[in-house]
Amino acid sequence: MTEHDTGHEPVGYSSDKENYARRLARIEGQVRGIKRMVESDTYCIDVLTQIAAVNKALHSLSLGLVTDHMNHCVIDAAASGDEAEIAEKVTEVSATIGRLLR
Amino acid sequence: MTEHDTGHEPVGYSSDKENYARRLARIEGQVRGIKRMVESDTYCIDVLTQIAAVNKALHSLSLGLVTDHMNHCVIDAAASGDEAEIAEKVTEVSATIGRLLR
Amino acid sequence: MTEHDTGHEPVGYSSDKENYARRLARIEGQVRGIKRMVESDTYCIDVLTQIAAVNKALHSLSLGLVTDHMNHCVIDAAASGDEAEIAEKVTEVSATIGRLLR
Amino acid sequence: MTEHDTGHEPVGYSSDKENYARRLARIEGQVRGIKRMVESDTYCIDVLTQIAAVNKALHSLSLGLVTDHMNHCVIDAAASGDEAEIAEKVTEVSATIGRLLR
Repeated sequence: MTEHDTGHEPVGYSSDKENYARRLARIEGQVRGIKRMVESDTYCIDVLTQIAAVNKALHSLSLGLVTDHMNHCVIDAAASGDEAEIAEKVTEVSATIGRLLR
Repeated sequence: MTEHDTGHEPVGYSSDKENYARRLARIEGQVRGIKRMVESDTYCIDVLTQIAAVNKALHSLSLGLVTDHMNHCVIDAAASGDEAEIAEKVTEVSATIGRLLR
Repeated sequence: MTEHDTGHEPVGYSSDKENYARRLARIEGQVRGIKRMVESDTYCIDVLTQIAAVNKALHSLSLGLVTDHMNHCVIDAAASGDEAEIAEKVTEVSATIGRLLR
Repeated sequence: MTEHDTGHEPVGYSSDKENYARRLARIEGQVRGIKRMVESDTYCIDVLTQIAAVNKALHSLSLGLVTDHMNHCVIDAAASGDEAEIAEKVTEVSATIGRLLR
């Protein structure tokens, strides 16, 4: 995993950043709620139902981020015509999709 | 989803409750970290890599809970010989697995 | 993976065996259709849409088999009261669910 | 789902077409094998293990096709500079990834 200097170029999700932060805050709250369910001995199935809801929210968020990334970073690389940069971007997004599919 | 009165019987994960609560606290922290990554314009791919790590942690936790649930709630129902109770438990865990598989 | 002698006891899906075989024949046909799509240069996205349909059919089939397995093999083990047998069955179905979740 | 006229342009996986066809033939054989397992009352867990293997093979194949598609169709659209075409391609691949993630 390489860290990228984001000082020079906006990231793919820039225009939707607040929306993503808000959804992540909600997911954080859902996970905290699940922890409390466990601490107060909530029935297993009810705990698992909430975990499935978090999975779903994370999948939807991932798909949004992948789409934004393609719309900006991948398309920009493609437009630049820089073959090495294009290859790197596609390999990177492909590895990411592979991790999400698992 | 029905809420269950847990005052009378321990839930399936009782003996491992603190372990689950600790893992959920860690996942909550991971999600908070991802929110901060988004707020500080971290590169999309690095955000997605962290989301994949949360997915993985949640999957492992789900599998543990399903296993504990079968070991206790489902097996207890089966041992009771109460056909209606057995059918309800299996239907319930099957629906839960279906939601996790999606 | 151990092979089990199925001569002595019916498997969990016995009563629904023909239904499962029919669905698997249909999935086999779908996969053959996808192979032909590839051989005739069908557009990537249309190929992937058909693969997603096969995934979905396999997931639904898996869930049915896991449910039948719990309803018969796991419940029978539980009813027997044989602790070692119960533990083995639950460990086995849990490992299987883990493989399907991945 | 729109069918695409593939007479005019090669599809993204053209150079690897035979490899994909071969893998699909193998998956077709695996599914046929699973059908036979069901017909001969093979133990549920062994059937499910083989289904998990097919899932894995299909996931790997999907990821390859998505990658090839991005490397060719998406990158070509991006290079063309045609905004509408780019938007269509990204929307299409995003919807496809969404279906695979489910």
